[in-house]
Amino acid sequence: MIQERIQKLRELMEREGYKAYVIPTSDFHLSEYTGDYFKERKYMSGFTGSAGTLVVTDKEAGLWTDGRYYIQAEAQLEGSGIVLFKQGMKGVPLPEKYLEEQMGEGDVVGCDGRVIDAKWGMDLKAALAKKGADLNGTKNLIDEIWTDRPALPKDKVYILDEKYAGESMSDKVGRLRAKMAEYGAKMHILTTLDDIAWLYNLRGSDVANTPVFMAYAMISEDSNLLFIDMDKLTPEAEAYLSENGVQVMPYGAIYEWVTWIDPEQTTLLDLNRVNYAIVSELPAKVIHAPNPTTMFKAVKNDVEIENLFRAHVKDGVAVTKFIYWLKNNVGKTKITEISASDYLEARRREQEGFIDLSFTTISAYKEHAAMMHYSATEETDAVLEPEGMLLVDSGGQYFEGTTDITRTIVLGPVSDEIRTHFTAVLRSMLNLMNARFLYGCSGLNLDILARGPIWDMDLDYQCGTGHGVGYLLSVHEGPNGFRWRIVPERNDSAVLEAGMVTTDEPGVYIEGSHGIRTENELVCRQGTANEYGQFMYFEPLTFAPIDLDGIDVSMLTALDKKRLNAYHKLVYEKISPYLTEEEAQWLKKYTAEI
Amino acid sequence: MIQERIQKLRELMEREGYKAYVIPTSDFHLSEYTGDYFKERKYMSGFTGSAGTLVVTDKEAGLWTDGRYYIQAEAQLEGSGIVLFKQGMKGVPLPEKYLEEQMGEGDVVGCDGRVIDAKWGMDLKAALAKKGADLNGTKNLIDEIWTDRPALPKDKVYILDEKYAGESMSDKVGRLRAKMAEYGAKMHILTTLDDIAWLYNLRGSDVANTPVFMAYAMISEDSNLLFIDMDKLTPEAEAYLSENGVQVMPYGAIYEWVTWIDPEQTTLLDLNRVNYAIVSELPAKVIHAPNPTTMFKAVKNDVEIENLFRAHVKDGVAVTKFIYWLKNNVGKTKITEISASDYLEARRREQEGFIDLSFTTISAYKEHAAMMHYSATEETDAVLEPEGMLLVDSGGQYFEGTTDITRTIVLGPVSDEIRTHFTAVLRSMLNLMNARFLYGCSGLNLDILARGPIWDMDLDYQCGTGHGVGYLLSVHEGPNGFRWRIVPERNDSAVLEAGMVTTDEPGVYIEGSHGIRTENELVCRQGTANEYGQFMYFEPLTFAPIDLDGIDVSMLTALDKKRLNAYHKLVYEKISPYLTEEEAQWLKKYTAEI
Repeated sequence: MIQERIQKLRELMEREGYKAYVIPTSDFHLSEYTGDYFKERKYMSGFTGSAGTLVVTDKEAGLWTDGRYYIQAEAQLEGSGIVLFKQGMKGVPLPEKYLEEQMGEGDVVGCDGRVIDAKWGMDLKAALAKKGADLNGTKNLIDEIWTDRPALPKDKVYILDEKYAGESMSDKVGRLRAKMAEYGAKMHILTTLDDIAWLYNLRGSDVANTPVFMAYAMISEDSNLLFIDMDKLTPEAEAYLSENGVQVMPYGAIYEWVTWIDPEQTTLLDLNRVNYAIVSELPAKVIHAPNPTTMFKAVKNDVEIENLFRAHVKDGVAVTKFIYWLKNNVGKTKITEISASDYLEARRREQEGFIDLSFTTISAYKEHAAMMHYSATEETDAVLEPEGMLLVDSGGQYFEGTTDITRTIVLGPVSDEIRTHFTAVLRSMLNLMNARFLYGCSGLNLDILARGPIWDMDLDYQCGTGHGVGYLLSVHEGPNGFRWRIVPERNDSAVLEAGMVTTDEPGVYIEGSHGIRTENELVCRQGTANEYGQFMYFEPLTFAPIDLDGIDVSMLTALDKKRLNAYHKLVYEKISPYLTEEEAQWLKKYTAEI
Repeated sequence: MIQERIQKLRELMEREGYKAYVIPTSDFHLSEYTGDYFKERKYMSGFTGSAGTLVVTDKEAGLWTDGRYYIQAEAQLEGSGIVLFKQGMKGVPLPEKYLEEQMGEGDVVGCDGRVIDAKWGMDLKAALAKKGADLNGTKNLIDEIWTDRPALPKDKVYILDEKYAGESMSDKVGRLRAKMAEYGAKMHILTTLDDIAWLYNLRGSDVANTPVFMAYAMISEDSNLLFIDMDKLTPEAEAYLSENGVQVMPYGAIYEWVTWIDPEQTTLLDLNRVNYAIVSELPAKVIHAPNPTTMFKAVKNDVEIENLFRAHVKDGVAVTKFIYWLKNNVGKTKITEISASDYLEARRREQEGFIDLSFTTISAYKEHAAMMHYSATEETDAVLEPEGMLLVDSGGQYFEGTTDITRTIVLGPVSDEIRTHFTAVLRSMLNLMNARFLYGCSGLNLDILARGPIWDMDLDYQCGTGHGVGYLLSVHEGPNGFRWRIVPERNDSAVLEAGMVTTDEPGVYIEGSHGIRTENELVCRQGTANEYGQFMYFEPLTFAPIDLDGIDVSMLTALDKKRLNAYHKLVYEKISPYLTEEEAQWLKKYTAEI
């Protein structure tokens, strides 16, 4: 079947005069998670992983994916005739390099320019030009092969009330226009869905777990165009947009509108975040800079922060009830990884203002937890026994904000090694949570506070220590984060500003044995200002007990104990009012001073 | 007198057709410390600070200096007619900006192109060009005014034996040529004195406290030219250079030689470290990159490291004897800041292989120590009493390497606040000294380990936590260091490599009250290598007691105590064999477990 699809594609390529065709994993908005409409790469290759690029030439078909998926891709590509390119392995060229090598004089590489980012497309075009070849991003050939492609979603958008957003759309647009003026830009093109949702104070449900909607925006000094499928707008939303001076245009019309931009109108856009099709049609001069809204929305306002505390109390109640139930029922009733996460989801759904999970829950027992991105399936769904640990990483979308929390729960006896690792992870998390620092620090400066106790054991977790979190938006959001080395495409090493929300989630992952992660969200706050500068600190947003059963108390310093006790005292105060008497009794014990 | 000199300069400027003349504080090699020959700015302005730029136009004379020197400069410029430009203050333009503003069509700015860096000169020339003005760096006008200018030094250079250097000149040149080939460069121009001394395994005494000598070098694939005053070479050094294929040229001849470089010969040089006169004469294409020797010499080889341990034991013996004497004699005999530093210098001079101090000793009593760069003068020389603390920051040049150590010594009763600060500084220093981290970290990642305990008190020390140290070279050396924000001109945020030596010197400075600094040098080492990468750690090079009389033991965690006790055990083992019995008894007590 895959072979037939590839064959059909080659026929279309021949018709169009293409020597190669590229299918990345993306949507028109370069989203991290994409809807079913956009799963072309999966349809054409059979590979179901979350990241990968398919390149088909007249002679060869190759799939690029990273280390997380080598084994899965190898299995899924078997018999397809598609060659696996193990991205990141020494000697394996990136797809763009491969294309540059394969193409010659007069050859054309085709792709849908709407699903590749402008920078990548421009660089590839320039590289191909050196060989006398070209890139054509104007046609989607897969439409003719994938005839039963799912439709684009038609779900309605809703207005996020100012009591949740804390700032009106018109104030936000005003700030954006002031920033455009600073850059000397007359026009701004915005296509990232979370930026658009934030700017217009609208939310939708076009992407699983992330309340965004498909749209593009073009904003000038005196005009504000929102390109969106009209069917998605309620009369209320239409009126709201109109009142705020927003002109609504058909979703796909942006590709025509950009060609009409006055060449004199300098346009601000982020070449890494806007697709190639838009930029290649743009007659105007481009100022390439991060979207101003990305920084704006990362800095939560006071209303948002107050709401976030409410959301996190609700979320903490759900998680605490879950832990109580789990620890009291494991080994008595049959609980599996999946049924446990279902129980937790049910507790979240009981909370007022709950909208959705903020990502697929990771519920990973014992050695499963060593896989950082494990997702239980029917085949792997482990039965929980009264021994070892269950790692649960989960979160919710509430009107009061987005949550993300991990707790690793002791279900019964654990080894001394596990206890040592659990305690080190706790110390790491507390160390970063209690940081005091001068304004100007980024996550690069602070990361070692969390990573240090893990490095002291000659171990490491091979990911950042934490990421920014949106407000009823994406659970992963830039430009803040904790990481010790800059990873440019992550955009998470910005200076920490008061109001930014970042996760603090160190871990230990021992393949085939166990995985431990403890995650709190932190909001950055201003402390003392004096002759040395502005001091900053963090306040925890997350309220749920950290399992005392996992701790080797002898490893804790007096300061560690003080910090843990203070945190647990806060957890008890915030959460116990919403529990049953039995649950509250239990929580009292599990947040008791040690 | 100053007014007359400025007047004379204006006459010369008129003769040459210059509208302005710039006098920075530098030598032909852009050295941090310069010889008396180069003190033109001081001669012309009367301002004696270590940093400053004098700009004289037909209408105005201005002196730029930074915050350290505002008060001093104001006093010294009084009556000179020279206006003080407080560099770093809001609204005060930098000298280059000032020149750009003041100059118009056809105006020429003159300077000696040999004492400004190429990048600065090129940028200024480009900025002036926009106004129709120009920069002329071909003439030194001060020579005609400063008729009794001191001579350039004629001191002999000496060969640093391979038993000290650990690598032959020819091996070093081979490595340099390999690096040039990597860059695709046929020629390399090297003018920084410490790089030259390192590369040729030669040392001299042309700059106070830094055993370098005045020279330039031009190295191609098959030629190696050293431009040096022939009088500085002993027959032995001449033979050594000749044997190693080095052609010796007169010092100033480089300015002619660069004009002869084949335009096809791509030349590698560091535009920030080579002077403007050289680069503006260069017909060849330039590859601007850091001097490869800067990284080479920062990574000490095994022989150098073994030697460094020997040098630091000698240095530690001198410092320990000094502390013993000081604590036992203060209040009994008259000791002042200067006589204390003289006593310490005498102890260093007793050590075999001692050559010179590595910088002017800072001996600062009580509130004097709050001034980070205090240098006692006859006027300020405080008498030490049996109370408060004396901060002593000092170091030596030995054949076995360069040292830099600070101890703050308790002379009698101190306040609780001082004790709190002393203990925090100790914890800071120990925290960084005991870091374990993955290869790839720079000082930016680790700085908070030292700064954290200071920041926790809402205090800060407004400088880096530490700097690289040369081997019988400059006591300040890049590209390694500890600092939380990149300061481009410092070049001290490189990835920490095994073999790099860096100081660890956090402090607390309370104006008008006290200053505390505790400084050890650390050598970076490789630890475990496993699936996570290469772990790294530090080993202390410095061995001298940290004054137990200053510590508030209740502030130390168990881990702090363990670390301090382990360090003090090491100090006793290394140092006690070289002490008198009384001194050893005392050291035993002052390195006892707490």
